[in-house]
Amino acid sequence: MAMTDGLQADKALLETALVQKDQTALEALLGKRRSADVAELLETFIDDDDDEATALALLETLSFERGGNVFSYLQDETQQRLADGMADKWLVKLLEEMGSDERADFFNLVGEDRREALLRRMARHEREEVLHLASYQEGTAGALMTADYVAIPAGLSVSQAMMRARQTAPDAETVYQIYILDGDGRLIGTLSLRQLMVARPGAAVDDLMIRDVIHTRVDAEQEDVAKLVARYDLLAVPVVDDSDRLVGIVTHDDALDVVEAEATEDIHKGMSIGQLETGVSRVPLLKLYRKRIVWLVLLVFGNLFSGAGIAFFEDTIAAQVALVFFLPLLIGSGGNAGAQAATLTVRGMATGDVGVRDWGKLMGRELLVAGALGLTMALAVAPIGVVRGGEAVALVVAISMITIVLFGSLLGMCLPFLLDRLGWDPATASAPLVTTVIDACGVVIYFSIASHLLGLG
Amino acid sequence: MAMTDGLQADKALLETALVQKDQTALEALLGKRRSADVAELLETFIDDDDDEATALALLETLSFERGGNVFSYLQDETQQRLADGMADKWLVKLLEEMGSDERADFFNLVGEDRREALLRRMARHEREEVLHLASYQEGTAGALMTADYVAIPAGLSVSQAMMRARQTAPDAETVYQIYILDGDGRLIGTLSLRQLMVARPGAAVDDLMIRDVIHTRVDAEQEDVAKLVARYDLLAVPVVDDSDRLVGIVTHDDALDVVEAEATEDIHKGMSIGQLETGVSRVPLLKLYRKRIVWLVLLVFGNLFSGAGIAFFEDTIAAQVALVFFLPLLIGSGGNAGAQAATLTVRGMATGDVGVRDWGKLMGRELLVAGALGLTMALAVAPIGVVRGGEAVALVVAISMITIVLFGSLLGMCLPFLLDRLGWDPATASAPLVTTVIDACGVVIYFSIASHLLGLG
Repeated sequence: MAMTDGLQADKALLETALVQKDQTALEALLGKRRSADVAELLETFIDDDDDEATALALLETLSFERGGNVFSYLQDETQQRLADGMADKWLVKLLEEMGSDERADFFNLVGEDRREALLRRMARHEREEVLHLASYQEGTAGALMTADYVAIPAGLSVSQAMMRARQTAPDAETVYQIYILDGDGRLIGTLSLRQLMVARPGAAVDDLMIRDVIHTRVDAEQEDVAKLVARYDLLAVPVVDDSDRLVGIVTHDDALDVVEAEATEDIHKGMSIGQLETGVSRVPLLKLYRKRIVWLVLLVFGNLFSGAGIAFFEDTIAAQVALVFFLPLLIGSGGNAGAQAATLTVRGMATGDVGVRDWGKLMGRELLVAGALGLTMALAVAPIGVVRGGEAVALVVAISMITIVLFGSLLGMCLPFLLDRLGWDPATASAPLVTTVIDACGVVIYFSIASHLLGLG
Repeated sequence: MAMTDGLQADKALLETALVQKDQTALEALLGKRRSADVAELLETFIDDDDDEATALALLETLSFERGGNVFSYLQDETQQRLADGMADKWLVKLLEEMGSDERADFFNLVGEDRREALLRRMARHEREEVLHLASYQEGTAGALMTADYVAIPAGLSVSQAMMRARQTAPDAETVYQIYILDGDGRLIGTLSLRQLMVARPGAAVDDLMIRDVIHTRVDAEQEDVAKLVARYDLLAVPVVDDSDRLVGIVTHDDALDVVEAEATEDIHKGMSIGQLETGVSRVPLLKLYRKRIVWLVLLVFGNLFSGAGIAFFEDTIAAQVALVFFLPLLIGSGGNAGAQAATLTVRGMATGDVGVRDWGKLMGRELLVAGALGLTMALAVAPIGVVRGGEAVALVVAISMITIVLFGSLLGMCLPFLLDRLGWDPATASAPLVTTVIDACGVVIYFSIASHLLGLG
């Protein structure tokens, strides 16, 4: 993982302080450090040095509260590795200090037996809570949410609500958004702490609260939850179950992580790489292989169409071998332009900038832009065509360039729409897929034009 | 833009209500609607119907406060178009209700003359503030930040601080993080509202506050500011100037927008598309052309190397034309694998998962994975080689496949590191660039192996 020189120096000092059991030095090195940074330190001991012992020793010097906080910042694999070396008693103490969402995430990492052992040691409330939160499918609002929110019943005054907020403050993930529930636990309103602060202490919360609460459901896709947070600049989104009962909240920091993770997944999808779920430097080699090979092999077979096209025009090629000189250039250029068009469309769909209704308008725009691109590229390649093969060949290459770039761009732009229409993920229109299709079509277009204009084959 | 059927129906009702000046209907349709949603409505009137008049009429029905809020949710182009149709007096009233960051962003959209006219109508404090905030380069913390934060001097008690927070609450972007400044306005500490709430009213803020405040500078890249917010799960990051004076804060919602915008930029960069700054459905056609053509033309010339390679091996091709059948397949496959490797590396660097030091480790991992990928793909293509050209050709194609995929993957993985070493943006190692390089190398590798093993040319 990315590491700075300062970190390297600190590692050495910490190892010394640990060995010498120097509490003062440890306090000086770790005391003021933020949990995210301490977690990073532990990661480097594991990633770079394979040194779980030192990482565990460091974790042990921290209070349970701090240790739990640090533990929650660790990567999944690091949590698993360290947990393997921790006694149940200690691990449970740390887990109890973690946010309920992070605790549940960890539970989904450990095996059955360990889970049982840990649950047995937990207080009943926490045990039920973790089993509940851990039951949701990964990638949904349920899996993201925390149960540490502030909820009050209807009918309270502003000052009563403030008191509740103050009481719950130490345990809540966020105390800045308060949720009002009815007798059945259903979400009926929300109020921000800011609104509470500026209101008259005697005013009724029910009069001030927002009743049409922006919310999501436990089975909502995490991507959509993040979009909600982004659209309305929310601090947190409440999550309800099928009965509209409030069961958790997803906070802005988790939404931020989701946006980045989803972007990474989209970037990988754009290269026909399957979901890795872990950083590229840490994902197991076999998994990395499996997530890349599927489409690579499919596209090998896809590329046979290019070959078939070439076989069909073998006589044309034999008659004017100089034509082959321009083949990679033409299909490569078409592929580049097409991949650009596909990427713009897929990303536009992902950010909500482009919708299914926009197909016609985008088609028209792409027609114009791709025409201009093709023309420019044809003008760029024409002189080389003259030098390499003469005027006739130059004409063939120029016309082919315009045609292939136009065709490729329009195909690249339309493919995501078509896939969406068929009920598939538009992002399947990846750069490798689009370029493979354009390669095959480009071969046919080029040699057809050549045969026709040069009277070959 | 993406639009729902519900929106379509509402548009019709709104148009009717406006024409009939039906206040009750307007209140029913707009009253409970969130500002982000009203803004979306205005956008559709402009994007779909080119109907500024209705959009302006709608905006006029709102209070200044609501109108300013809605205006701040509009896209840049929409703000400009509407502002063109608004009297200075009205526009300034709306601007005064916007957050200071959004007000400054708008000022950077209008021409000199309009700016002067608007500034003349503004209160002195706001005028200075907007000139200050608008002076920062786009893409920096200064351009992102808002001046609407809560700051208190050192030496206050908890209850005094709470009172200040309560007083500033209506105007502050966020009241949940309080900043403590010294006599010169320098940032010396921070405290969350939560911490204030649970503290003893008589306690000294200076004793409770965090002194080592995570902060950023006015000229920091927005990408780095967002990373800070993500890493430490911050609600807001304070921004200081060269003298460490607090000048603004960047809130979590702006960080979220930055993460998405930066991801879009990275996705476009991965296809050699320059920064569009606007959605693909709205960016001016000429700009879309300019941002795509640069690399497309450069790569046309880059593709000439493939052509040169083919020219060099013209005799080999002439002797065994069946070889050309496999050319697109081999260089296409190598390009796909290489583009995958480059994308994984570039994204890894962008998310901080991969650092310069990791080159050796990643090289080793890629060697193994690419070897496996190449072998699998060679086995997939070998039977077709036998059918198409006989055993000798199949062997040539299989060996070429392994070699090209290995070479391409390692090249794709290394290129971002090399570019970074040269001080360039690693993301320049885009899919089109990588595939173009691999095309050229692939041609040479394939025909060299063919010449050698088949004794040709």
